[in-house]
Amino acid sequence: MNPNFKTIALIGKYNSPEIGEPLLRLATFLREHDYDVIMAIQTGEHIAACPFPMATLEEIGERADLAIVMGGDGTMLNIARNLIGSEVPLVGINQGRLGFLTDVSIDTMIDTLVDMLNGEFTIEDRILLHTDVVRDGKSVFEAWAFNDVVVNKASTGRIIEFEVSIDGQFVYSQRSDGLVVATPTGSTAYALSAGGPILHPTLEAFALVPICPHTLSARPIAVNSRSIVEITPIHAFDARVHFDGQEHFDLMVNDKVVVRRAPSTVRLLHPVGHSYYDTLRQKLHWGEKL
Amino acid sequence: MNPNFKTIALIGKYNSPEIGEPLLRLATFLREHDYDVIMAIQTGEHIAACPFPMATLEEIGERADLAIVMGGDGTMLNIARNLIGSEVPLVGINQGRLGFLTDVSIDTMIDTLVDMLNGEFTIEDRILLHTDVVRDGKSVFEAWAFNDVVVNKASTGRIIEFEVSIDGQFVYSQRSDGLVVATPTGSTAYALSAGGPILHPTLEAFALVPICPHTLSARPIAVNSRSIVEITPIHAFDARVHFDGQEHFDLMVNDKVVVRRAPSTVRLLHPVGHSYYDTLRQKLHWGEKL
Amino acid sequence: MNPNFKTIALIGKYNSPEIGEPLLRLATFLREHDYDVIMAIQTGEHIAACPFPMATLEEIGERADLAIVMGGDGTMLNIARNLIGSEVPLVGINQGRLGFLTDVSIDTMIDTLVDMLNGEFTIEDRILLHTDVVRDGKSVFEAWAFNDVVVNKASTGRIIEFEVSIDGQFVYSQRSDGLVVATPTGSTAYALSAGGPILHPTLEAFALVPICPHTLSARPIAVNSRSIVEITPIHAFDARVHFDGQEHFDLMVNDKVVVRRAPSTVRLLHPVGHSYYDTLRQKLHWGEKL
Amino acid sequence: MNPNFKTIALIGKYNSPEIGEPLLRLATFLREHDYDVIMAIQTGEHIAACPFPMATLEEIGERADLAIVMGGDGTMLNIARNLIGSEVPLVGINQGRLGFLTDVSIDTMIDTLVDMLNGEFTIEDRILLHTDVVRDGKSVFEAWAFNDVVVNKASTGRIIEFEVSIDGQFVYSQRSDGLVVATPTGSTAYALSAGGPILHPTLEAFALVPICPHTLSARPIAVNSRSIVEITPIHAFDARVHFDGQEHFDLMVNDKVVVRRAPSTVRLLHPVGHSYYDTLRQKLHWGEKL
Repeated sequence: MNPNFKTIALIGKYNSPEIGEPLLRLATFLREHDYDVIMAIQTGEHIAACPFPMATLEEIGERADLAIVMGGDGTMLNIARNLIGSEVPLVGINQGRLGFLTDVSIDTMIDTLVDMLNGEFTIEDRILLHTDVVRDGKSVFEAWAFNDVVVNKASTGRIIEFEVSIDGQFVYSQRSDGLVVATPTGSTAYALSAGGPILHPTLEAFALVPICPHTLSARPIAVNSRSIVEITPIHAFDARVHFDGQEHFDLMVNDKVVVRRAPSTVRLLHPVGHSYYDTLRQKLHWGEKL
Repeated sequence: MNPNFKTIALIGKYNSPEIGEPLLRLATFLREHDYDVIMAIQTGEHIAACPFPMATLEEIGERADLAIVMGGDGTMLNIARNLIGSEVPLVGINQGRLGFLTDVSIDTMIDTLVDMLNGEFTIEDRILLHTDVVRDGKSVFEAWAFNDVVVNKASTGRIIEFEVSIDGQFVYSQRSDGLVVATPTGSTAYALSAGGPILHPTLEAFALVPICPHTLSARPIAVNSRSIVEITPIHAFDARVHFDGQEHFDLMVNDKVVVRRAPSTVRLLHPVGHSYYDTLRQKLHWGEKL
Repeated sequence: MNPNFKTIALIGKYNSPEIGEPLLRLATFLREHDYDVIMAIQTGEHIAACPFPMATLEEIGERADLAIVMGGDGTMLNIARNLIGSEVPLVGINQGRLGFLTDVSIDTMIDTLVDMLNGEFTIEDRILLHTDVVRDGKSVFEAWAFNDVVVNKASTGRIIEFEVSIDGQFVYSQRSDGLVVATPTGSTAYALSAGGPILHPTLEAFALVPICPHTLSARPIAVNSRSIVEITPIHAFDARVHFDGQEHFDLMVNDKVVVRRAPSTVRLLHPVGHSYYDTLRQKLHWGEKL
Repeated sequence: MNPNFKTIALIGKYNSPEIGEPLLRLATFLREHDYDVIMAIQTGEHIAACPFPMATLEEIGERADLAIVMGGDGTMLNIARNLIGSEVPLVGINQGRLGFLTDVSIDTMIDTLVDMLNGEFTIEDRILLHTDVVRDGKSVFEAWAFNDVVVNKASTGRIIEFEVSIDGQFVYSQRSDGLVVATPTGSTAYALSAGGPILHPTLEAFALVPICPHTLSARPIAVNSRSIVEITPIHAFDARVHFDGQEHFDLMVNDKVVVRRAPSTVRLLHPVGHSYYDTLRQKLHWGEKL
């Protein structure tokens, strides 16, 4: 038993009964090796007669030394968002295909975790975005994002119009379907569909990616993560800001969407030998070694 | 006279007689304020009866405390390349339109320089690329680049095939017209035409931008400037590596083009109030404030 | 008086009082040359003591031999949509900047119209789209479009999923923000912002342009205008179809959005010497002759 | 025996001994069904004791009623180019993976050809490009292309500068790596890598696709195949025109590269049920039916 990881939380993909068996197998294995195992309530309550203590995500954030998440990148994104600020390191086990955030295969998880719990892992701290929506000088909404903050048209309009400034310097006005502010983690999600660049996870940067811009010379830009990005809808009938596609807030004209790096990060543990480029290549079908 | 800038070199756009008058005017002004003025030989020898001592770029690199370059971004790029390693800070005066590197207007240069020599300037250190071409384990060529290192097809072929690895990890094989490795400075040059992202100058990053890739899911990626990027032509009949579009070297199959951050930087001095985003917006015709 | 154009309707940009004076001037000029002038009601009722007979767009469609539209491309689009099926040829006068559809300048309109009414014009017939939304085998909605039919996410979702078939052949399934089906006229509007190609107005083609597709190898395709394009939302919580950005209809899963070329066209008259490429170059800031 | 196809030529991929066995098997089958079989010399001379009469491609063009090409799209492209003007219809058998031009699988070729020779096929006529290079008013070079005509930088330069006009109307000047003029057939080849649209084979259109254009608002445009496209290098140190990547010609400043539709077409025969969209979907990894 590695005392750094004495209390280990297990969290499974929501509403996925097929995950019960491997989760229990993993939990049993960990208990046999003297770890204290906590099962997330949302997971455990779908497992018949779950023999492990259950806890909310909030409690996990306070008590766990490590959280093992089983599911896909969507599950990992969701759990990471819920644990923001807790500093619990995360390991992701992919149920199906390799993910960007879930890089341990369910087929080899026990062997891999034995190694990782023996200290054979690498640490990666991923940056997060914190957003305030400021109206008449006061914050009226705040939210965190692991992938991206997206200001876009809501239902009625085809196009919105907004101004962007960075660190108090005016950058551009734009008419478009919207703008994505993505972390390196989010650079392989929606921002990539919108034509943004991939940012390596070690970069201290955000990408600003316009969505269907009216001006043809608009281009994505990667800025320093020390930057404070401010987006202000102008003449917008109908603009909205989304956080990781999981929360949103309706904007009014002259609201300021103020996006900056959050003080905390998401800590991911990877098995030794993990390669970000392998994941990219497999997910994006890039060319193999010749 | 600001003793930090006691010796100031003046360098003009190559083969541009119209630059003689403003350069002499500037030189006279500086001498009147007790600066030691050196004129670059390549510039001074085109000025009739140039009353200022002349020096090679190498001598300027050794002796000058500041170099003022008059011309466009192309001139600045060229001079910066020639002064690599010298640590002489550079100020760029644009003859015509605002440039990314030449942000002082010739029309207001005297006033602006008075302020800058009084210490009212900001410092920006731009990263450079150093490249070794390794053949059979030995470096057979080396070069520096301020904008970009481009591996591309030379004259005969339509497409080349190469493998890329970063920090010893395989990234992808690719069939394309070539690959650009760009600094933040170069991200607004050729890399942008090839579809790459803009990287803010403060980012410690390179962009890898494929040129007309055969695989449609190829995408630009920005990687950490601590990375060592290795590009190896495979089955290439006819690949070549270019440095800032000013030097090139013909590659053989299995050569390794090893690109990393150079130990030195290019130091640019900007007038206070200079905004990178203003330059971007003007050069790229992005939307003005509404 | 050219008997082919005996009855001429004048239509101005909606809610634009500044258009009253030039419209009246034009109307007076035409009446002096023995044309019967009709003023669109929506325009005339904003002109104090309008001395010309007024008519609805429907009446104009039945009675006019020519309709002159003053405003921008948006006005022209709107009027053309309202006159679909009437076969009234249209001339567009741009109030401000040159438009794709409004290519006669207000400053030179009298001289240009003298020439055009003398028979010096070229004819261009622009294709239109007709759409049926088919639910359970029956058409539940139909609409026409001059620019584009856009199936996209409505308010809640981030992505929709749909299948496309053409002439009964399956083309692809796609997860994206949506899909634009654009006429050549619409190819320089929203489709262009989404990354679509420009289609010359003489092409008998539609462009299918994905909006932020999840699959990175998705690409725009131009298909024959004889094609019948069918788009079916799958698992869509929240898909909607838009027509020229002016009408929309909410879709249900398994609805079939059936898009085909409409039997009628929009007939535009251009002054002799009009060049589509000039308009493109000016609107898109392409390079001038060197 | 179908008398419309009495004489059938067989042509295999160049320098591919593995193709000998299936080609002989096919030839034997055809002879048994009373077809006159001719083997292309370049193919037959690599088959030991080839029992079939051999002929040059020129002779095949004159004598054959049908040419069956075995290999990949590259082979088909090459053979089609060599048979331009002959009107011999082509069937393509792919050795390995499905191609755009080679849509009969080698595994099922006998069954498929039995059906096709019984008249169960569809005809597709693909347009070709004819190019004259005009210098001082005289054509100094001419060539045909099935895929594309590419004007690009040759070896030394990074960028070329040229003007484009269509049907005598000035379109744009451009600084870029070059310009692709692609047929619908070529729209899925190099033009696609350069960011061009896919043009359905039935479109009577060419795509003009800029390669790494300096102006960020440059976009691909599809023009009518009745158009005459003229490309003139300006200030070009070093421009070259390529035809299907197989022939090229070095350009001088002010040369006019005049591209128009060739009078003849390439006739492809497809098995009944062949779907262009299936090929696209498989080659480009687009989404399958859900």
